[in-house]
Amino acid sequence: MHNGRRKVTLRDLAEATGFSVNTVSRALRGEKRIAPETLQKILEAQARMGYIHNTLASSLRRGYTNTIAVILGDVSNPHFGVMMSEIEARARARGYAAFLQTTSEDEALERAAIQSAVNKSVDGILICPCPQSGQNLHTLASLGIPFVLVGRRSAAVDADYVICNDELGGWQATRALIERGHRRILMLQGDPEISSARERLAGYRRALDEAGIEYDPRLVREGSVMGKDNEALYAQILSEDLGFTAAFAFSDLIAWDFWRFLHGRGIEVPRDLSLVGFDNIQSRLSIPFGLTSIRTYKGRMSVEAVDLLVRRMRGEGDPAPARVVIDTALAPGETVRTV
Amino acid sequence: MHNGRRKVTLRDLAEATGFSVNTVSRALRGEKRIAPETLQKILEAQARMGYIHNTLASSLRRGYTNTIAVILGDVSNPHFGVMMSEIEARARARGYAAFLQTTSEDEALERAAIQSAVNKSVDGILICPCPQSGQNLHTLASLGIPFVLVGRRSAAVDADYVICNDELGGWQATRALIERGHRRILMLQGDPEISSARERLAGYRRALDEAGIEYDPRLVREGSVMGKDNEALYAQILSEDLGFTAAFAFSDLIAWDFWRFLHGRGIEVPRDLSLVGFDNIQSRLSIPFGLTSIRTYKGRMSVEAVDLLVRRMRGEGDPAPARVVIDTALAPGETVRTV
Repeated sequence: MHNGRRKVTLRDLAEATGFSVNTVSRALRGEKRIAPETLQKILEAQARMGYIHNTLASSLRRGYTNTIAVILGDVSNPHFGVMMSEIEARARARGYAAFLQTTSEDEALERAAIQSAVNKSVDGILICPCPQSGQNLHTLASLGIPFVLVGRRSAAVDADYVICNDELGGWQATRALIERGHRRILMLQGDPEISSARERLAGYRRALDEAGIEYDPRLVREGSVMGKDNEALYAQILSEDLGFTAAFAFSDLIAWDFWRFLHGRGIEVPRDLSLVGFDNIQSRLSIPFGLTSIRTYKGRMSVEAVDLLVRRMRGEGDPAPARVVIDTALAPGETVRTV
Repeated sequence: MHNGRRKVTLRDLAEATGFSVNTVSRALRGEKRIAPETLQKILEAQARMGYIHNTLASSLRRGYTNTIAVILGDVSNPHFGVMMSEIEARARARGYAAFLQTTSEDEALERAAIQSAVNKSVDGILICPCPQSGQNLHTLASLGIPFVLVGRRSAAVDADYVICNDELGGWQATRALIERGHRRILMLQGDPEISSARERLAGYRRALDEAGIEYDPRLVREGSVMGKDNEALYAQILSEDLGFTAAFAFSDLIAWDFWRFLHGRGIEVPRDLSLVGFDNIQSRLSIPFGLTSIRTYKGRMSVEAVDLLVRRMRGEGDPAPARVVIDTALAPGETVRTV
């Protein structure tokens, strides 16, 4: 049924199905008021006869595919899963289908994802750049395809971005611990190559400064962003007798992972250690124990990013790079206690 | 840059960049051994000149788009997030880009997703059918586009499917509780319209039968598959004084949600209630408290489903519907205690 998909018109479909051209057109545009049986007959005729609506044939004519590529680290990470879900829904509402491409936070896979997006002639790209993404972003900027960075920004390109206020979030997390009497606070940091990790650290340092607490670099340790394979790091940290009473993790995934490790060693949260994460993933997952975390408004970020990209694809709005930074908020939980 | 994307050839790209036609072709096919700078130059020229590799122009010629649609409930649910991640990676390895479309378990959104996939001229579809999906699956079967059901099967169509052995999983979960002395076991069931819910219940009943425990329908209660908005249900169950000492939940999400609810009422797992989930999501998330669950081998399911779909798209293999059922296994945790 893949052969002969050309030169079939709306009129042909209307004749084959007995519906009007107007009805066929409305059905193919996805209007809600078309009866399911009508839609089914038209779809069947469409598939049988090879009419291609709005994509191949018309995109060659118009130059558009009504498709965007979404390039993210890994949707098995629920933070990205939620972002993808929100982005897909918003893109659909704006008339675009969303391609997912994942990078596993790897620069070569990211390059392949960009290449695939170009090959698919997407109209635009949403990308959460991986560490070491600079060269890829340069390439992307040189291609002329509209794109928006989402969740992370980059010094490598002067591009549109939509991020949360990571510096504020880092400050809020650290401040919540300081207010409960903690002064030695471990930071389980993400890859400093990504903006969100650097900026959360800046917020951590500002909160310490404001409270007159000296910054101790031995308390800032880098784990895997995915919260995997960090066992050796945790064991090393515990062996160093650093005297911390609390920890702030780059992500809820890392916080959970550290918590699980501590639990296995008989160290209980928050009895023995207070803990704050980032992303407030549990708001979507109903995790039984409430990790204190930082709310990042993933729904709003997704809507802003899609809408900004749509404006770019349509050539609308201020051409200067848009810098959308959405403030975070503390999400109180059960894992911070007063010392 | 969307205009004029036609009639640019590999030779044009080679002339514009100074590389050989062979090098350009290899770069566009995504070969790993092409230097990043070379690739960048070729991609830039490709975007500038409008050469469309392997998609629009060539798909009109060949009838293929090298694209599959993946239709799932909701990737913010980490079970689906993991499936999507695995499917995307496998599809990429087999040369296909994966479109995500989500249904929110809604039949009208599922119909729209199928329509969008047809509009995009995908080569094939992987679908986890929502409840009440029968009419949509009939439509899909009539379109002639290869498709494979994944995670759930349907009596509505005699189609290829790749699922886990839900009956066995239901039996394993219930058996694990019976072996620890539990005889009154609450089942927090999913929507009985989906095969996985019905079959997990069948496994629950078989385990009870084998142990000579009478089936009590008051102990089987239906919650939301997403584990959301079940508070009223839980409160109702607790108010009925049903005398259960353990619960088996349709999914880890529901199990966590119930656990969180109980915790809020001062009822602790496993001290006061033993609990078993399904999906073993924590294997990817490092949740700090190990929920006893059922392992479903999402990676293997994804690979089997993609590979089966690729065979269908290529017209290879036995044309009879393939029924792939992957056995589950108990994933021991910390939430079952002996009574």
